[in-house]
Amino acid sequence: MRRLKTLAVVGVGLIGGSFAQALKRADAGTTVVGFDRDPRALERAIALGVIDTAAESATEAARGADLVFIAVPVRQIGAILRDVASSLGPDAIVTDAGSTKAEVVRIARDALKDRLPRFVPGHPIAGRESSGVDAATPELFRGARIVLTPMPETAPDALDVARDCWEAAGGRVAITRPEEHDQIFAAVSHLPHLLAFALVSEIASRGNSQDLFGFAAGGFRDFTRIAGSSPEMWRDIALQNREALLFELDSYAGRLAVFRELIERGDGPALERLMREAKGARAAWIAGTRRSASNE
Amino acid sequence: MRRLKTLAVVGVGLIGGSFAQALKRADAGTTVVGFDRDPRALERAIALGVIDTAAESATEAARGADLVFIAVPVRQIGAILRDVASSLGPDAIVTDAGSTKAEVVRIARDALKDRLPRFVPGHPIAGRESSGVDAATPELFRGARIVLTPMPETAPDALDVARDCWEAAGGRVAITRPEEHDQIFAAVSHLPHLLAFALVSEIASRGNSQDLFGFAAGGFRDFTRIAGSSPEMWRDIALQNREALLFELDSYAGRLAVFRELIERGDGPALERLMREAKGARAAWIAGTRRSASNE
Repeated sequence: MRRLKTLAVVGVGLIGGSFAQALKRADAGTTVVGFDRDPRALERAIALGVIDTAAESATEAARGADLVFIAVPVRQIGAILRDVASSLGPDAIVTDAGSTKAEVVRIARDALKDRLPRFVPGHPIAGRESSGVDAATPELFRGARIVLTPMPETAPDALDVARDCWEAAGGRVAITRPEEHDQIFAAVSHLPHLLAFALVSEIASRGNSQDLFGFAAGGFRDFTRIAGSSPEMWRDIALQNREALLFELDSYAGRLAVFRELIERGDGPALERLMREAKGARAAWIAGTRRSASNE
Repeated sequence: MRRLKTLAVVGVGLIGGSFAQALKRADAGTTVVGFDRDPRALERAIALGVIDTAAESATEAARGADLVFIAVPVRQIGAILRDVASSLGPDAIVTDAGSTKAEVVRIARDALKDRLPRFVPGHPIAGRESSGVDAATPELFRGARIVLTPMPETAPDALDVARDCWEAAGGRVAITRPEEHDQIFAAVSHLPHLLAFALVSEIASRGNSQDLFGFAAGGFRDFTRIAGSSPEMWRDIALQNREALLFELDSYAGRLAVFRELIERGDGPALERLMREAKGARAAWIAGTRRSASNE
């Protein structure tokens, strides 16, 4: 990793705190300035040694920083970008951890204006059951996929620094276009979350919901685990990635209609073939993830 | 448990083998006769001490047995019922482990005729990642829900014996009507399986499926775990429980359309409210299962 004298972290929760810890571990000389709209989070971050100093605002945190890492809920990224734009040094780099990217880029164009080339949109695919700075760990990103989605305007040196930092934190960096990122995550993350929320919502709405839950078992528990995620966060992701998510939802509804048709007309062989292909594709994926994990 | 001199197990796999082991542990005096259409499974069951003797047919296994336990794929239950009907003693009881019940009852009426009062339809909610008699364990049913779905014709003493045996195996017995069982499991088990198969099927069908799988993470893995289940088994369950499953599928599609509408028109508050209710209902369910587990 290149020398990072000062790192600013805006949003000192699980993601922001873990990034700070990972970069401090990679280079003990890095000073971390933190800001959070929750003063208690900031106090805890100081007490835990996750950050070195607390700033009064995002603008103040960004002043003099080599890298500004924005790890706030995706809907608040625009306001933070506007705040940091005014104090950003000429060579400073800004990156974020938002779960959607095309909308963040659209907002960044407006918020950052001529500073846009210094922005590297990003999305670390990492998390834990618990949240907040107390759950932060320098190990959070070890082996995790980190997606960076540079714009045509993004300066190559800014992308390089962001990539180096994530790799120093243990992440496996992939580069895609923002729209491609959003399509991919609509399919493999946002849609499944929506499907799980909808299933629990439907069952909870029934007159006999207590009987239904009473007989639900391990398969149901795993299938709906993601319906235990933050409603605010998933509301924002669904709305920010609306177009790609609706496309995926409609494609999925079409696939479900095929299954429905096969069941209705009792076509066992075709139904089994589709299920067998799905089982095979999933098994190949799981085998691949094990292989890539053991290659690290 | 009342004295069970001879138990016949037809289908010596994970479920049949575990039931045999659990009942032998509850009463060492019980002799287990097994039959399986796969001779190697039968050999393994003898070698492992899961059964005491191997029969040449289901008819032979049932001869002289106090209880006949049928643990074969749901589509084969009809043929086995016909086989055992001819050799069943006057007080012998037959029960099964099929995942659907109304269709099994319909077939049993035809197959068992005047022996119908001795049949106690059942469904143990238990399983493991691995299958086959080598995976059998007397602990499989400890704390598991066991659903018994007697018909109006079922003799009360037959139901009592079946219930006693399952409780001796550690199960928590619930009694429902066959149609109620099928509606409940269509909602909390069969539908989620179908939804998971359909999601993997849709993603595997894409031109960029490798990219999509490449970015799929833990949420996707848990959500689709049940798409790793047996295609033959789930094909049969879907077709046997067609009516209830199509009803659940259509209700679910309606709920999904509500979520779609809220996303399309950008109604954040209503979307968040539905997600919050779902998260709350799931959390209450999880808390309830922990409570009931700790009360045992």
